[in-house]
Amino acid sequence: MDTSNGMTKAFSFTAHHTLPVRSHPVLDAYISELIPRLSGNVHSDYHLHEEALRLPLDPDILAQVKKMAKHFATSRLKYVIVIGIGGSNLGTKAVYDALNGSYDLALPRLPKLLFIDTLSGNTIAELNDILAPVEHAQDMLINLISKSGTTVESIANFELIYQMLEKRFPNIASRVVCTTDRGSALWEIGEQRGFGLLQIPAIVGGRYSVFSAVGVFPLFLAGVGMEEFQKGASHMLQSAFSEDREKNFARNSAEELFAAMNEGCSMLNIFHFNPELESLGKWERQLIAESLGKEKDLDGRVVHAGITPIVSIGSTDLHSMAQLYLGGPKDKFTMLIRAEEKTGERITAKGILSPLGVEMAGKGPSEIMEAIYGGVLATYKEHGLPSLEVRLPPVSPYVLGAYMEWRMAVVLYLAKLMNVDPFDQPNVEDYKKVTRAILTKN
Amino acid sequence: MDTSNGMTKAFSFTAHHTLPVRSHPVLDAYISELIPRLSGNVHSDYHLHEEALRLPLDPDILAQVKKMAKHFATSRLKYVIVIGIGGSNLGTKAVYDALNGSYDLALPRLPKLLFIDTLSGNTIAELNDILAPVEHAQDMLINLISKSGTTVESIANFELIYQMLEKRFPNIASRVVCTTDRGSALWEIGEQRGFGLLQIPAIVGGRYSVFSAVGVFPLFLAGVGMEEFQKGASHMLQSAFSEDREKNFARNSAEELFAAMNEGCSMLNIFHFNPELESLGKWERQLIAESLGKEKDLDGRVVHAGITPIVSIGSTDLHSMAQLYLGGPKDKFTMLIRAEEKTGERITAKGILSPLGVEMAGKGPSEIMEAIYGGVLATYKEHGLPSLEVRLPPVSPYVLGAYMEWRMAVVLYLAKLMNVDPFDQPNVEDYKKVTRAILTKN
Repeated sequence: MDTSNGMTKAFSFTAHHTLPVRSHPVLDAYISELIPRLSGNVHSDYHLHEEALRLPLDPDILAQVKKMAKHFATSRLKYVIVIGIGGSNLGTKAVYDALNGSYDLALPRLPKLLFIDTLSGNTIAELNDILAPVEHAQDMLINLISKSGTTVESIANFELIYQMLEKRFPNIASRVVCTTDRGSALWEIGEQRGFGLLQIPAIVGGRYSVFSAVGVFPLFLAGVGMEEFQKGASHMLQSAFSEDREKNFARNSAEELFAAMNEGCSMLNIFHFNPELESLGKWERQLIAESLGKEKDLDGRVVHAGITPIVSIGSTDLHSMAQLYLGGPKDKFTMLIRAEEKTGERITAKGILSPLGVEMAGKGPSEIMEAIYGGVLATYKEHGLPSLEVRLPPVSPYVLGAYMEWRMAVVLYLAKLMNVDPFDQPNVEDYKKVTRAILTKN
Repeated sequence: MDTSNGMTKAFSFTAHHTLPVRSHPVLDAYISELIPRLSGNVHSDYHLHEEALRLPLDPDILAQVKKMAKHFATSRLKYVIVIGIGGSNLGTKAVYDALNGSYDLALPRLPKLLFIDTLSGNTIAELNDILAPVEHAQDMLINLISKSGTTVESIANFELIYQMLEKRFPNIASRVVCTTDRGSALWEIGEQRGFGLLQIPAIVGGRYSVFSAVGVFPLFLAGVGMEEFQKGASHMLQSAFSEDREKNFARNSAEELFAAMNEGCSMLNIFHFNPELESLGKWERQLIAESLGKEKDLDGRVVHAGITPIVSIGSTDLHSMAQLYLGGPKDKFTMLIRAEEKTGERITAKGILSPLGVEMAGKGPSEIMEAIYGGVLATYKEHGLPSLEVRLPPVSPYVLGAYMEWRMAVVLYLAKLMNVDPFDQPNVEDYKKVTRAILTKN
């Protein structure tokens, strides 16, 4: 059975149901509970974790970011060094890469965001080489992002990069903005040192924070239209918590994925057919994995719940993973996502290799990609593989905002259906404890 | 039970067995059959698919590559545009990225490889911008790689890039080298046009071709030590097909992974703790997925066999996936892989953020990463998660060659244990047929 499940200004999608999808009344109750918390013209006053989803409605965030940018973003700004890991950079990188593509580093476009997440001596040395031509501290800005203010990698990266830059720019302290919880130890050091300070609402967890200063500040500096980004999310917020089940496709997609999980799907394959959306896939990967992968449920029972999100890129991974996806175990639910593209230059009929691709003559890259996408859609259907077809308009801040808000709503619904807490990550502490012990001992 | 399973000049590894691993006599027979085909000083005369693993021993490959490079690689070579997808570029990109890091595009190092795989109008336009400063055709080289010579994306990308460059460089035809099957339609067009031509032995499939001209030509142009790369693989080849089970850790790791699969592991998590090895992970992802993901076994029975490989990066994904990996379903076998690094600059004890990380004072990035890796190893063990600890010396062409040869051998053994054909990919045709039909109709 095929149904056209949803259509907004932002996107449409179609589900190929291979399983019966039923309605869960528990979600009706959840929606009724949330609606008053997620609407209205409310400012920075957050009480429920779920209120992270109304960040796009909060006018204070962009106002504070603009004020900070006015002070820090001179017209000569070339590089923003974004130091953060996990929820502190995945959303920002998702939006930045979606709009700037895979070759941004090679192009002279400025200002540019440079992302530093994990620790590597090589990366620090390479950053030094990239910044070698920079002559003034005013050409750079360091944005250190850590909610707790204690993230090992980000603290270490900041120290190493600061040490390195201080040798060349004695006034580098004037070029630091920290995004963190108000009152964290990092916040206090920042106050003493005169760093710029942006706060993350205490209740907002890293993986839900892209619409807070975490994402909005660096993206605004990079020239991304933040009003449009917020507007896309705000529009999505309305339909994502609609009480009308027919119109609520966030709820529908959660119920469909939940049905697939109960039928044995242990993986969610996030299959993007636009290569510049790979980082968006990695943002969603964290959102799904950390929010739903739980040792215990809300009643304290050991359940080892979760679904493993994997990211695929069309058409690259058709030449890598498709054999497994089509022939191997039927253990995945797949989102096949394709954003419109400009047609681009067309292939001439008198090309060098024309005899090898007569059917491509006169076509542009986006038309050929559409045919590949169509081939994959038909094949998934034919093989009876559970999947969701998602069509996006051309990638824009509006569309990205709507997409990200949609996926956050889906995760809240899924957590409710699975009876797990989508806002904690207790097991991450396990390896951190040992790491700290090793560091202290050595 | 912990055992130290293997140690070569290239690397050591330790398995934390949570399951009994038994020996499979079918592999003894397979090894006896293969040994005469995989050893000796044999030239370009390939009969068995498995002989792809002796490509590193073939002196003709590098000789032909060097001859081609002498003709094409002028001292002014700046950009090699590598057009290929799947098996035609994943191995090359794995080695190139491992040695050049994530920021290569931003750095002035030349010559540089530019990889073009999937089709995107944006990518072509960006390539045009990157090449804008180039003044002479001699500064560039196009290497089109397609075994069949008919890969839709690569043919289309070549046509579009050629069209674009021909406007500025009328003699661009003199700067093309095609790597393809001898006698393919592409080979014939190349001969007519006077392109450079490098062949892939007919029996060698894309995902096993990195040691053929597919990988060796562009990597040689990029200045990667191909003798060392081959040497690492050749050394590994000896132990990977040793009849002594104790010394044969390719066999051991295959038998261990097979045991994990039989106990319900549906995923292989390739977890690299050096961020520059992400592309190496993507190379292995194809190798595992395409070789083992099969609808039918060798007896024609419908089995939907396979294990889904996923790639994780430490420490980045600890802040994204670790909650799921540690708390969620126990459905993964994990390889935890860490290559040694130079210590790098150390964090001063009088840093700006010293109060936030007293335990990091005096340490370099590699020491902190070691502590994180140690924390993860201990936690996997504590949680009883099946895993393999792999320790590599500093990343080099030798180590990469050995690693890639090891993984190819593991896949051959696994295919034998699973009774599937590791050399075909019949289901990939499914979507291609529909794609061609759509292209022809429109």
